[in-house]
Amino acid sequence: MYAKVSIIMGSTSDLPVMEKATTLLNEFEIPFELLALSAHRTPQEVEQFAHNAENKGVEVIIAAAGMAAHLPGVIASMTTLPVIGVPINSSLDGIDALLSIVQMPPGIPVATVGINAAQNAAILAIQMLAKTDNSLKIKLKGYKDNLKEKIVAANSQLAEIKYEYKTN
Amino acid sequence: MYAKVSIIMGSTSDLPVMEKATTLLNEFEIPFELLALSAHRTPQEVEQFAHNAENKGVEVIIAAAGMAAHLPGVIASMTTLPVIGVPINSSLDGIDALLSIVQMPPGIPVATVGINAAQNAAILAIQMLAKTDNSLKIKLKGYKDNLKEKIVAANSQLAEIKYEYKTN
Amino acid sequence: MYAKVSIIMGSTSDLPVMEKATTLLNEFEIPFELLALSAHRTPQEVEQFAHNAENKGVEVIIAAAGMAAHLPGVIASMTTLPVIGVPINSSLDGIDALLSIVQMPPGIPVATVGINAAQNAAILAIQMLAKTDNSLKIKLKGYKDNLKEKIVAANSQLAEIKYEYKTN
Amino acid sequence: MYAKVSIIMGSTSDLPVMEKATTLLNEFEIPFELLALSAHRTPQEVEQFAHNAENKGVEVIIAAAGMAAHLPGVIASMTTLPVIGVPINSSLDGIDALLSIVQMPPGIPVATVGINAAQNAAILAIQMLAKTDNSLKIKLKGYKDNLKEKIVAANSQLAEIKYEYKTN
Amino acid sequence: MYAKVSIIMGSTSDLPVMEKATTLLNEFEIPFELLALSAHRTPQEVEQFAHNAENKGVEVIIAAAGMAAHLPGVIASMTTLPVIGVPINSSLDGIDALLSIVQMPPGIPVATVGINAAQNAAILAIQMLAKTDNSLKIKLKGYKDNLKEKIVAANSQLAEIKYEYKTN
Amino acid sequence: MYAKVSIIMGSTSDLPVMEKATTLLNEFEIPFELLALSAHRTPQEVEQFAHNAENKGVEVIIAAAGMAAHLPGVIASMTTLPVIGVPINSSLDGIDALLSIVQMPPGIPVATVGINAAQNAAILAIQMLAKTDNSLKIKLKGYKDNLKEKIVAANSQLAEIKYEYKTN
Amino acid sequence: MYAKVSIIMGSTSDLPVMEKATTLLNEFEIPFELLALSAHRTPQEVEQFAHNAENKGVEVIIAAAGMAAHLPGVIASMTTLPVIGVPINSSLDGIDALLSIVQMPPGIPVATVGINAAQNAAILAIQMLAKTDNSLKIKLKGYKDNLKEKIVAANSQLAEIKYEYKTN
Amino acid sequence: MYAKVSIIMGSTSDLPVMEKATTLLNEFEIPFELLALSAHRTPQEVEQFAHNAENKGVEVIIAAAGMAAHLPGVIASMTTLPVIGVPINSSLDGIDALLSIVQMPPGIPVATVGINAAQNAAILAIQMLAKTDNSLKIKLKGYKDNLKEKIVAANSQLAEIKYEYKTN
Repeated sequence: MYAKVSIIMGSTSDLPVMEKATTLLNEFEIPFELLALSAHRTPQEVEQFAHNAENKGVEVIIAAAGMAAHLPGVIASMTTLPVIGVPINSSLDGIDALLSIVQMPPGIPVATVGINAAQNAAILAIQMLAKTDNSLKIKLKGYKDNLKEKIVAANSQLAEIKYEYKTN
Repeated sequence: MYAKVSIIMGSTSDLPVMEKATTLLNEFEIPFELLALSAHRTPQEVEQFAHNAENKGVEVIIAAAGMAAHLPGVIASMTTLPVIGVPINSSLDGIDALLSIVQMPPGIPVATVGINAAQNAAILAIQMLAKTDNSLKIKLKGYKDNLKEKIVAANSQLAEIKYEYKTN
Repeated sequence: MYAKVSIIMGSTSDLPVMEKATTLLNEFEIPFELLALSAHRTPQEVEQFAHNAENKGVEVIIAAAGMAAHLPGVIASMTTLPVIGVPINSSLDGIDALLSIVQMPPGIPVATVGINAAQNAAILAIQMLAKTDNSLKIKLKGYKDNLKEKIVAANSQLAEIKYEYKTN
Repeated sequence: MYAKVSIIMGSTSDLPVMEKATTLLNEFEIPFELLALSAHRTPQEVEQFAHNAENKGVEVIIAAAGMAAHLPGVIASMTTLPVIGVPINSSLDGIDALLSIVQMPPGIPVATVGINAAQNAAILAIQMLAKTDNSLKIKLKGYKDNLKEKIVAANSQLAEIKYEYKTN
Repeated sequence: MYAKVSIIMGSTSDLPVMEKATTLLNEFEIPFELLALSAHRTPQEVEQFAHNAENKGVEVIIAAAGMAAHLPGVIASMTTLPVIGVPINSSLDGIDALLSIVQMPPGIPVATVGINAAQNAAILAIQMLAKTDNSLKIKLKGYKDNLKEKIVAANSQLAEIKYEYKTN
Repeated sequence: MYAKVSIIMGSTSDLPVMEKATTLLNEFEIPFELLALSAHRTPQEVEQFAHNAENKGVEVIIAAAGMAAHLPGVIASMTTLPVIGVPINSSLDGIDALLSIVQMPPGIPVATVGINAAQNAAILAIQMLAKTDNSLKIKLKGYKDNLKEKIVAANSQLAEIKYEYKTN
Repeated sequence: MYAKVSIIMGSTSDLPVMEKATTLLNEFEIPFELLALSAHRTPQEVEQFAHNAENKGVEVIIAAAGMAAHLPGVIASMTTLPVIGVPINSSLDGIDALLSIVQMPPGIPVATVGINAAQNAAILAIQMLAKTDNSLKIKLKGYKDNLKEKIVAANSQLAEIKYEYKTN
Repeated sequence: MYAKVSIIMGSTSDLPVMEKATTLLNEFEIPFELLALSAHRTPQEVEQFAHNAENKGVEVIIAAAGMAAHLPGVIASMTTLPVIGVPINSSLDGIDALLSIVQMPPGIPVATVGINAAQNAAILAIQMLAKTDNSLKIKLKGYKDNLKEKIVAANSQLAEIKYEYKTN
């Protein structure tokens, strides 16, 4: 079964963050591949990946990188598939990675999510795939309902912290 | 012809920035609608819009806002369509809008582009639509080739600034 | 006894911070309620809460959130009660939450306190309630006198660090 | 008619910003006073003002200052009335004033609004006054409805920017 | 023996940082006093201190504070003695305290040192006192020579990390 | 008449800012000298200046610089006279100059004032000189009284913006 | 005559900044070439350039870019020639470009100069070339002497702003 | 064997960071020296070092410093050798050191690498030395190939995190 989502990391040290994405894609039963490719250390492998992705059946690319995070933008420049960028916090609270990913020049967008927000990158990818997959749409709605239910359940915990009416 | 892309602005003062998106969508012959809806001033209209968008045929939403820019996130919380967020620079160089849009909680992503980057929001929307539209894919490739050609042409301008070999 | 102050959190992970507010409201014997409501995960519950708050007898709302902290502003847009916003530090030292809460558009203010400053949110709420409650005013003055006395007492600790006059 | 709202500025150069507050208070027919008092240049006048405000009938204080903006916090330390702080942008895009106003120590809150957000300071003051004034509540709701209507009207302007269906 | 330097802290939690200043003043045999005074909690004590300092024989004031650090500026507004401000890092890496201390309005300077730089505050105070005290000047020069000697000595440690010439 | 205050600029482009200092020193009748010396372009002249300043009778040094503003710190490392640093805004709103001046290592303080705050540098220098000059102390008090009077006078301007009581 | 220095711009809009580099290289009579190449729009041309540069005789590369400035890092990943990066201020005061250029991952350095500092990029390139060119070394020393002379000359302008001794 | 690269630290506390540079230079068999010199504590030793470096055979200087990091710029002002600056993170996440090093005035560049990026400083120095040393060029290419191989190897680790196809 070919991958519909490619998750690319600039460094394997990004793996603990990005596993939140793989967990979620497995939950949604979406085939994915996970690769370590560096814009700076393996530029030719990046190029090769980017040029072949669409033909292999990939529909969305998630690219994560820290510091001067060029990987998402470089991949975006080499494909017309949508590229989702995940800024990794490995210095300066991740603000360097965020700006390096989101502030792309006109014509080459990267769909940027929050710092270390691998989970949101996966949801965004699923939202794009759901365009042509009704069962995914239904699962997404279930996922959202679940988010809501967790909060509703949490309220019972809060109910124990209450105004203590003092009588005397 | 129904709109495939909805462009939502938090304020009509964002129009000069967002017109770059409408121009581009017209170039790509993609039907769109342009609306002013405020997360804070017209919350019910926002909710109504978000709940009906998918049924109307909208496939991607572009939402622009400045300052404490809640509009993109609020819409994203009410739909499973992908939402592209455009931070508008109306204070603090736009860094407040960028952080208010991109730093979404787990489960509710906004696909954020650069500050004032309406053009990139449009391209990103087109990349999502192209998934099921081969003619769009071909136009996107043409657009990218054109970006390249402009730079190649620009080089002739630069050739006039050259090393002045001094003989004596 | 109905709540005069509603404390709303975007996530139960904000509870350790917000308990400073509940402790203080209990000290001042002010009835409150504590709820987890998310602008993004339970938007309808937020709306319902905001529309009913005034009729239930709530006079001030305290809303806490981190990251792209939309909750205080979204509630403020749906009520004419004063809303106090508490930025929670869960990323970027809390600067993202601060800007997402304080930089509201014209017409929809949020009374913002410092990052993680739940205690100050409670005091501010009490100051608003004291407008029509003389016994609260008296307690507030006692609270301020107490702040002063703690510092005066602390000076004895400092008196032990002193200039060591050397004779030889 | 005594003032219910005191507007205090650290410098008369803040006047062009703060006039947005006076305009709004006049619209709502709320008596106010406008004073220039400096935490650093007229500390005794500040103290005198703060100690007398409540007895004069003032119910809310709005204090505006730029740079190392101490005025709102200093006044807050001398009264139990709620103090609304307006950070003025006179250097560093106003970020210095924002942090100097909002990051108050425990026990002495300042209800901070956005940078240069004099209009929001006035609305927040009115929300506090409305607690005991039903006619103000009604006006506030009218004000909010008006915010909404302006945006609805603005949509007609946007309707002219539309998808140009090309036939050929 | 009366104090020539007053060290004022906004909170006793600043003591671990400020002890570097008392150690240094003891080394230089300069009489000092150490007080906890809060611009916001004990404004009257601050005023009393500031107005009496010069008459008591104080020649320089060191004032430390964190967050919205108003103490140094408030004292500076009430005396013509030079006031040295020490920004304490208790939030936002200390950048809020730095800006709240250094960005004073025209006419009321605070001589600001680095974040948590209590030692430098003491040296700066000593440099001011040395103007009329030759023996202090000599000690200061000795102190500077000592700084140099420590670095010279440190070089021996570095000499052990050296180029390893490989022969083969 | 020898100079008691040396004003050193890293570049003559800083002159429009620094003239506020010379104006004030002239008002206080304090002899000064004004020099352009660059830590990077004329390091030997800086060294010569720093080593001779005290012997020439200079009592305080004011040093202004922008960007990577090394001049105040470099001078401070070569003298035991107090050095006042003025960060000049020539890039990044002056934040680079502020950090380059204030964040000095232990042992070498620079008494830093606000960004472009030449006037405050002069007042701080005068406060240091006033230690041994009673007439200066009296002038300083007059200067402060004047700051206060300007604000008091300004209040008349504000009195014209008032609550417009509507009768009908 | 082949180019020893290649100046690469991400966009021809960077030309007004980068002309300061070409002027300086002409002054030093160093052959250079000036090219517009975009990491994102012409990735293959960038790769071709980087792979051929050394064989063509290029010894140093200067690469300028704004926003998410990937060009210098991408070129650095494809050559072992030293690459000098010039962050261009086209948004956020240039801080996004600075971080995107300087925060490179281990193994792929970019020699970064200040924001818009094209002149310094040229001087740094000349310093590298001077290693094997004695006449360049002599010119560099002359250039530095000239920097010094300009400041010395500027002092005469300052001498006119002087202490005005008042007699009466 | 004389040193070709001088590594200078502002403080021996920078040693744990800078040892990554010495390790790498040893790997490349490049003779170096390691010195602690402070722009502020040993200014004369800095000057002496800078003036003698070229005559001793040094070809590149690496200078590391934290906070108001003046050392790299001060050395650059005293030599025409290329100076590589390493900002050390000892406060404010290293952003103060980065700005103090990179924002040099026109005419005196510092080749700045990332925060704590000692390894990249060494590689950059080696790239400069390789200009006249073919065996170094070959080693550099081997080093880059090795970077690539590490990532290629890392992919096997990632292959274990895969899409779990669920059958039922």
